[in-house]
Amino acid sequence: MTGQPSPALDYPGRIETLQAALRRRKIDAILVSRPENRRYLSGYTAPDHGINETSGLLFVPARGVPRLLTDFRYEIQAEQETSLEVLLYQRGILALLKELLGDSGVSRFAFESHYTLHSFSLKLGELAEKLGIELVPLSDTVEKLRTIKSAAEIDIIRRSVRLNESVFQSIHALLEPEMTEGSVASMIETKMREVGAEGPSFSTIVAAGINGALPHAVPTGTPIGTDCMLTIDMGLVLDGYCSDMTRTVTMGTVDDTGRKIHRLVRKAQLAGMAAVRPGVQIKDVDRAARKIISAEGHGKHFGHSLGHGVGLAVHEAPSVSFRSRRKLKPGMIITIEPGIYIPGWGGVRLENMVVVTKDGYENLNRDTTCLDI
Amino acid sequence: MTGQPSPALDYPGRIETLQAALRRRKIDAILVSRPENRRYLSGYTAPDHGINETSGLLFVPARGVPRLLTDFRYEIQAEQETSLEVLLYQRGILALLKELLGDSGVSRFAFESHYTLHSFSLKLGELAEKLGIELVPLSDTVEKLRTIKSAAEIDIIRRSVRLNESVFQSIHALLEPEMTEGSVASMIETKMREVGAEGPSFSTIVAAGINGALPHAVPTGTPIGTDCMLTIDMGLVLDGYCSDMTRTVTMGTVDDTGRKIHRLVRKAQLAGMAAVRPGVQIKDVDRAARKIISAEGHGKHFGHSLGHGVGLAVHEAPSVSFRSRRKLKPGMIITIEPGIYIPGWGGVRLENMVVVTKDGYENLNRDTTCLDI
Repeated sequence: MTGQPSPALDYPGRIETLQAALRRRKIDAILVSRPENRRYLSGYTAPDHGINETSGLLFVPARGVPRLLTDFRYEIQAEQETSLEVLLYQRGILALLKELLGDSGVSRFAFESHYTLHSFSLKLGELAEKLGIELVPLSDTVEKLRTIKSAAEIDIIRRSVRLNESVFQSIHALLEPEMTEGSVASMIETKMREVGAEGPSFSTIVAAGINGALPHAVPTGTPIGTDCMLTIDMGLVLDGYCSDMTRTVTMGTVDDTGRKIHRLVRKAQLAGMAAVRPGVQIKDVDRAARKIISAEGHGKHFGHSLGHGVGLAVHEAPSVSFRSRRKLKPGMIITIEPGIYIPGWGGVRLENMVVVTKDGYENLNRDTTCLDI
Repeated sequence: MTGQPSPALDYPGRIETLQAALRRRKIDAILVSRPENRRYLSGYTAPDHGINETSGLLFVPARGVPRLLTDFRYEIQAEQETSLEVLLYQRGILALLKELLGDSGVSRFAFESHYTLHSFSLKLGELAEKLGIELVPLSDTVEKLRTIKSAAEIDIIRRSVRLNESVFQSIHALLEPEMTEGSVASMIETKMREVGAEGPSFSTIVAAGINGALPHAVPTGTPIGTDCMLTIDMGLVLDGYCSDMTRTVTMGTVDDTGRKIHRLVRKAQLAGMAAVRPGVQIKDVDRAARKIISAEGHGKHFGHSLGHGVGLAVHEAPSVSFRSRRKLKPGMIITIEPGIYIPGWGGVRLENMVVVTKDGYENLNRDTTCLDI
C-alpha cells in the first residue's frame, strides 16, 4: 500500500476524458489491462506479477459507472486505494465479464491490444461471439492521455527526479574502487527505499570500465576499480511516477580518449536538449544530438534512440527516435540520453529528463556530477 | 551478466527435446518469446523490461540451427552467454523474421500465444499471410518441458531455497519492533544480493498485524510493532532459479486466537505435504490441506490455491489448485502454502517448497522458525 490517492491527481477527470474518447470512437466499453493505465485512471497501485498474473482490470463504459475487477488477494487494497466500485472475480475474469456485458447494452467492446496476450484475446473473442458483441482491439488510447502531463504530475515527477539525484549523490560520495558493481547497485536501491521511494523504476545499471560498452549492462560481482569510467543508470518510483538518470563518472584518472568521448556525449546531450520545444519534430531532436556524435565518426557506436517518455512507466510514449513522426507538445516529459559504446573499451551515457514547456524546455535535473571532465 | 552457462544444464539437449516436440506436431519452426523459456533453452539471462520491451527471441526450427534474435544493446551479453548463433535485428524484428522465414521452407510457424501480445500477433499474421505461411498459436510447449526438473535443476533450486532460508534467518535475528515493514523488506533484498543472489524472485512481502490479512501485502512505512504476528514471504533467484518461502513469525506474545490460527495453518501445511507423491491428482493435494482449514470454519478465509510450481519463474506450472486436472510427477517442484486471512484481524501463511520424488516428496526447506508456536 502506498497511501490514499493524492487529491491533486484528478482520477474522475481522467475517466471522463477516456469516456469521451470512447464515445467519439463509437465504443461502448473498454477493458483496461495495462497496470500503468489502471493506476492512471483509478489510483489503484498494485503491480502485475508478470503479464500472466493480473492484479485487476478496469471495466470502463462510455457512459456510466466504471468498475475495478480484481480477485480476493487484492480486495482490501483496491477498496482502500480507489473510489471505483470493486467487483471480485471468483470464478474467473471471463465469467465476471460475461455478467457485466450480458445486461449492459454494450455492442462494441474494446480491449488493449498492446497489453493483452494473444491467448486471452482468443477467450475474449469466444465470449464476444457468444454474446453477439463486436470486439475492438485498441492501442494507445490511455497512453495518449498519459503523454501530456498535468501540472500535478510534473510536480511529482520533478520530486521523483530530485530524490533520485539525492540518492545518486549520496552513493557517489561513498564509491570506493573495491566495491563491486552489484554492491553499488544494491546500495542505491536500498537508499531509494530509505528515502521514501516505492522502489527503483528499473533494475539499476552499474557498469565499470569495459562493461560500460553494454547499454543495458547487468551489475556484476567485479570491483569497480580505479582509473576508469563508471556508468550508473538509475531511477526510482515516487508516488507512482518514475525518474531515470544516467551519469558516467570518473574513478581516479581517465585517459584522453575517455575524456574526449565523454565531452562528445555531453555536447550531444546539450544539443539534444537545446532542440526541445513545442512543435518540433521529435526526430529532429534525435538528429540534433546524433549528428554531433556522427560527425566525429562514432555514429555506429550510438545504436539506440536519443530518449523516451517517462511517467507512470519508465519507458512510455513518445519515443525520441529518428523514426518518430510526432511533434513535441507542452507537458511531454522525455529523456535526452546520448551514448557512445565501444566494444572492448567501454562507454559513456549521459541522461537527463526534460519537460516540454510552452516555449522551450525545463531540465528537471540539477545534478552536474562529472558532466564536465 | 551472471556468468557463463553452467555446464550442468544441458541447453543442447533441451533444444533437441523441443525440436522433437515440434516435429511431432508438424511444426517447422517456433518463435520463443517468453524470457524464462528463452533462458531455459539458451542460457541467455537478460530479462525483458516489460512485455513491450523484449531482450530477444529464439527462432528454433524443427530441424537445423536455432538462433537468438536480439538488438544492439544485448549483442555482447548474448554472445557471451549462449552458444547459439546471434542475429541482430537492426530494422525491427519483423524484417529479420521475414528474411529468416523467406528462404527457410517453413510452412507452419508457431509462436507463444501465452506470451505474445495481441498487437504483435496481428503483425505476425500479416507477415505470415504475405509469405504464404500458416501461423500456429501454441501454449505451454516449452513450459511443459520445464515442469519436470532435472537433477542439476533440483540441485540449483535446493541451493536457492537454502540461501533464501539463510537470508531469512539472518534478518529474523535482527528484527526490532520499531523497524518498518518497508525497511525489513529492504534489508532482506540487500542481504540477498550480498550473499550472491541475482536478486529477489518477487517483491518481498512483509506484513505486520492486520496487514497480514492481505495475501499480497505491499510493505508499508509502519513499524512492525510488538505482540503481533509478522508474515514474511520472500524468495531469491540463484543462477536463474527461484525460491519462495513464507513464515508468519511472532513478535512478542501472541493471543490464543493467533496461536490457534497459526497451528491450524501449520496442520494444513503438513497435511498438504503428506499428500504429495507421484500419480496423485494435484487437486487432492489442495483438498488435503483445505479440508483441515474448512473443518474449523475458515474455508472462506483461504481464498487462494494451495501452491504453484517454481523454477526459472517463481510462479509456473503446475498450479496446485482445486481446479487442477493434472497429476504429480517425479521432478515437479511445488509450493505448499496454506493461509488464513481475516480482514481487520490479520493473517497467517506458511510456505515450503517440495520436490516430488519417485515415491513421495522431499521438503526442500529446513527452516523451522516459528513453525510450532
